Amino acid sequence: MRLQAKPFDAQIFAQFGDVICARQMPDKMINQGKCARYHNLAKLDFVGDGRAGISLFDAEPRALPYRLEMMERHPLGSQAFLPLHEHPFLVVVAEDDNGQPSNVQAFITPPSVGVNYHCNIWHGVLTPLEAPGLFAVVDRIGNDKNLEEFWFDEDMVIEK
Amino acid sequence: MRLQAKPFDAQIFAQFGDVICARQMPDKMINQGKCARYHNLAKLDFVGDGRAGISLFDAEPRALPYRLEMMERHPLGSQAFLPLHEHPFLVVVAEDDNGQPSNVQAFITPPSVGVNYHCNIWHGVLTPLEAPGLFAVVDRIGNDKNLEEFWFDEDMVIEK
Repeated sequence: MRLQAKPFDAQIFAQFGDVICARQMPDKMINQGKCARYHNLAKLDFVGDGRAGISLFDAEPRALPYRLEMMERHPLGSQAFLPLHEHPFLVVVAEDDNGQPSNVQAFITPPSVGVNYHCNIWHGVLTPLEAPGLFAVVDRIGNDKNLEEFWFDEDMVIEK
Repeated sequence: MRLQAKPFDAQIFAQFGDVICARQMPDKMINQGKCARYHNLAKLDFVGDGRAGISLFDAEPRALPYRLEMMERHPLGSQAFLPLHEHPFLVVVAEDDNGQPSNVQAFITPPSVGVNYHCNIWHGVLTPLEAPGLFAVVDRIGNDKNLEEFWFDEDMVIEK
């Protein structure tokens, strides 16, 4: 099955997570007017005794067409990806249909934009499209099993 | 008073906060070996009923020599700065001497490196040295007063 990666659509993405980007107007100007603060842009949600932590992910850049073999979700926590560079990256999300990803959608982010997948939302693994593939990740730090994978019977090919 | 900005020294910085950067060895390889995870790199610490949140700061770039007029600290929480670009930025920290910053030190970060100021550590405001001055910030979301400023009688000039 072939799927086209679309330009990022914040309204569609809202059902899967938060777009972390500067809005039209800052919530507050700080530091004597020299810094705009866009406040509290992501719903961080960590179940049980897990808590927020900052990690770094350094991922191998991929290219389009990209073969999507699996998707994953984290039942115990949200997961935010913040690019430590100005390159777009590929975001793949899906609805859930009885424990399986359904209605898969692919987007290419604008530069300098992060995403926060809400708790238990199906998403593709981190797929930068250029080097460096370095991201700060804010997700759940805890010892419980927080990863569910779904491997497709047939790969999906995501193209431009 | 003049002060020289030094190359970033993670060992000295450790008394003020955490360096958020890829270590020599990842803690774990994930995503079928295609992504290195450097796990839980910052001590997030939020007092009272505050909690972690992700905001964006968009700050006006500054230049060296930079006139440091004030420093600030956050008594109720740590504050992490994650550059959404590959440019170095200026980091200013100080020890505390009876409620006043003392022994001020200035560093220039390497590219793709973030910092997390620990709770109540004196630091300068966000000072990118190039545009864009865009950073993701992980700090305390809450309603209490969480900002203390100290204005110097005499400015400090930070130079290369």
